[in-house]
Amino acid sequence: MQTSSLLESLMEALRCLPGVGPKSAQRMAFHLLQRDRNGGLNLATTLHQAMTAIGHCEDCRTFTEQARCAICANPRRQHSHQLCVVETPADIVAIEQTGQYSGRYFVLLGHLSPLDGIGPKDIGLDLLEKRLANEQIDEVILATNPTIEGEATANYIAEICDEYQTVATRIAHGVPIGGELEMVDGTTLSHSFIGRQKIEI
Amino acid sequence: MQTSSLLESLMEALRCLPGVGPKSAQRMAFHLLQRDRNGGLNLATTLHQAMTAIGHCEDCRTFTEQARCAICANPRRQHSHQLCVVETPADIVAIEQTGQYSGRYFVLLGHLSPLDGIGPKDIGLDLLEKRLANEQIDEVILATNPTIEGEATANYIAEICDEYQTVATRIAHGVPIGGELEMVDGTTLSHSFIGRQKIEI
Repeated sequence: MQTSSLLESLMEALRCLPGVGPKSAQRMAFHLLQRDRNGGLNLATTLHQAMTAIGHCEDCRTFTEQARCAICANPRRQHSHQLCVVETPADIVAIEQTGQYSGRYFVLLGHLSPLDGIGPKDIGLDLLEKRLANEQIDEVILATNPTIEGEATANYIAEICDEYQTVATRIAHGVPIGGELEMVDGTTLSHSFIGRQKIEI
Repeated sequence: MQTSSLLESLMEALRCLPGVGPKSAQRMAFHLLQRDRNGGLNLATTLHQAMTAIGHCEDCRTFTEQARCAICANPRRQHSHQLCVVETPADIVAIEQTGQYSGRYFVLLGHLSPLDGIGPKDIGLDLLEKRLANEQIDEVILATNPTIEGEATANYIAEICDEYQTVATRIAHGVPIGGELEMVDGTTLSHSFIGRQKIEI
């Protein structure tokens, strides 16, 4: 942008957002300047607050500006004595939206990946062990991603749970609802056969 | 997001950006928190500066934090005595990228639209008249959009130019380069016949 260096800086800065290239950045900058300066100022303030104030929950490691997140601090969440292990805070959002689960969470913020130098401590498994030792947790639900790394991480955590005599379960793999069977890949279909369940009448 | 109200505010604030819905806002917020806090802080600072400091060039009305934009202030831009009229600052970027034009610009920041109450003063035509009266402008190139409103605006400005004995030209409408003739709509094809030019050998 040859007319203003500050506008150029703004377009450059907007590109830190995922999925925003030069064209989108230009469109966003012009939109804010032309139509929504208050929105832009509000975004600037909130962004600054969020980037400086949001840290990790000391219990479950998800993002929060409090010491403990709203889920961990909620006494109702502790009745079930269940702990669901996920890879990212976004997974919590997805699971919460189902309304199926009312226990607490533990966020790994990644998965085991020895080749990248990511070991058990980097994904907070020392903290998880402490919780298994000190709290009453009856079941650990392993909801890591259905990838090779996610499966390996789930198995590793299941072994830790075994040491503490805690039941570890893995979320079911199978045919997604609403799809067509012939479109489902072979590995998923195999899993759906292995994981078949008796129909109770 | 049930774990943090500040995170929820951030997602809400990000939605002021065009083309950003709830899912993208969530993805952006998590990306910045997890991988690029410095980028987020830099964006917050630049955004605040841009929203407060960027105004309009007193000559051409494009966005700039100076009194006059870099193009208007550039003495080389004044040799051609040409003035290109565009609807938005983004149009300047597109024209500059062609490298075809070395004159100055005038930005309407809209187009005439009597039904919406947008009259000549709202698109700065009083300022344009002052420039026509006081500066030496040999040609006004009308590069408004090829829409009904854009054409009407171009015609209106051409009449003003006529009063000041200034030549007004309209950018050519026709078949876009690289397309296929059979795919081009009828109106454009008609324009390309009306605007045909003699091949000079």
